[in-house]
Amino acid sequence: MIHVYAFSTPNSVKIPIALEELGLDYILTSVNIRQGGQKAPDFVALNPNGKVPVLVDGDLVLSESAAILVYLAEKTGKLLPTSGAARARVFEQLFFHASGLGPAFGNAGFFRNLAPQSIPVAIDRFGNEAQRVTGLLDNLLAHQRFVAGNALSIADIAHFGWLWRRQFAQVSIDAAPNVQRYIAELEARPAFQRGIARTIAMAEG
Amino acid sequence: MIHVYAFSTPNSVKIPIALEELGLDYILTSVNIRQGGQKAPDFVALNPNGKVPVLVDGDLVLSESAAILVYLAEKTGKLLPTSGAARARVFEQLFFHASGLGPAFGNAGFFRNLAPQSIPVAIDRFGNEAQRVTGLLDNLLAHQRFVAGNALSIADIAHFGWLWRRQFAQVSIDAAPNVQRYIAELEARPAFQRGIARTIAMAEG
Repeated sequence: MIHVYAFSTPNSVKIPIALEELGLDYILTSVNIRQGGQKAPDFVALNPNGKVPVLVDGDLVLSESAAILVYLAEKTGKLLPTSGAARARVFEQLFFHASGLGPAFGNAGFFRNLAPQSIPVAIDRFGNEAQRVTGLLDNLLAHQRFVAGNALSIADIAHFGWLWRRQFAQVSIDAAPNVQRYIAELEARPAFQRGIARTIAMAEG
Repeated sequence: MIHVYAFSTPNSVKIPIALEELGLDYILTSVNIRQGGQKAPDFVALNPNGKVPVLVDGDLVLSESAAILVYLAEKTGKLLPTSGAARARVFEQLFFHASGLGPAFGNAGFFRNLAPQSIPVAIDRFGNEAQRVTGLLDNLLAHQRFVAGNALSIADIAHFGWLWRRQFAQVSIDAAPNVQRYIAELEARPAFQRGIARTIAMAEG
């Protein structure tokens, strides 16, 4: 049985969604990061970086949400093309999310909501970058259904995490009609709905 | 022939190093980001995100340095195990670099060197995080030769980019003896030396 340690966060939600899309059973365990659960010794033993999500599958203990997505896709042979440009596009989007969109949204949210003082230079740096990369996604989605082409892939699941929690970053999609269409299409998928519901329930339990 | 568009940057240097390690010929073209070359129409046509490096291999035009590393490793069957935990560890480190170490080093360097004013909250946030993740690497390298195990992988090439340019981020490795050993071992490899030399030459040409 696959075990997932997670909470109701942009990176966590990706894993239940992927597992639901892939049709794999899993046990989801809440790590309450509001109470510092990610710094508890038992959890740090799983992930020295002290971050959710973590996946445990037999002997394998794996951190980094996108690495977990790649592992699950290759385990099942789904949501990741096996060769060629189609495969390269998925990795391009996974790393664009990990290095670009994710940090921009996360830091925009931090400086807008959590920083001990208002720092316009930092809000502008990350807020503008979050808005810029949202515009890049909108341009991409103007001529293809999903971010890596016309088939759903793990790159869509990766991007969805922060798009789902875009209000924290105060990113607007008012001027991004293709991103609006894309989010609506993902949110209409039953597997996404099940993964989101199980993720949200962890913060309510 | 493989074409690489790059400059003397932490993300760019990974690609010539990988190509040298893999024994592949390539043409390296300088995109002078000090003069805004990454925003020129010809370059934005290759990468709408306006960032180096970009790889062109036949019909494939690929951005995101780590996605390029995965592509090259799979093209040659080297520097990336084909299955199991060994493979998962490489992706875990690639995404730890892309989402963690890279943004921490980059933002620490920005707020220490380039920001229009000194902002202690931001310097502390990113400087402390850069130092923390360097400590995680040091712990990992205390009991294995490379970041994903005891064989060189593309994850080492990914981490090397920012370790090589750690002075920009003002990250100290004085208290990280295993990271010191690791950097010295990588810098002693002839392929790394050739890749670094060709990368530096772009800024001097």
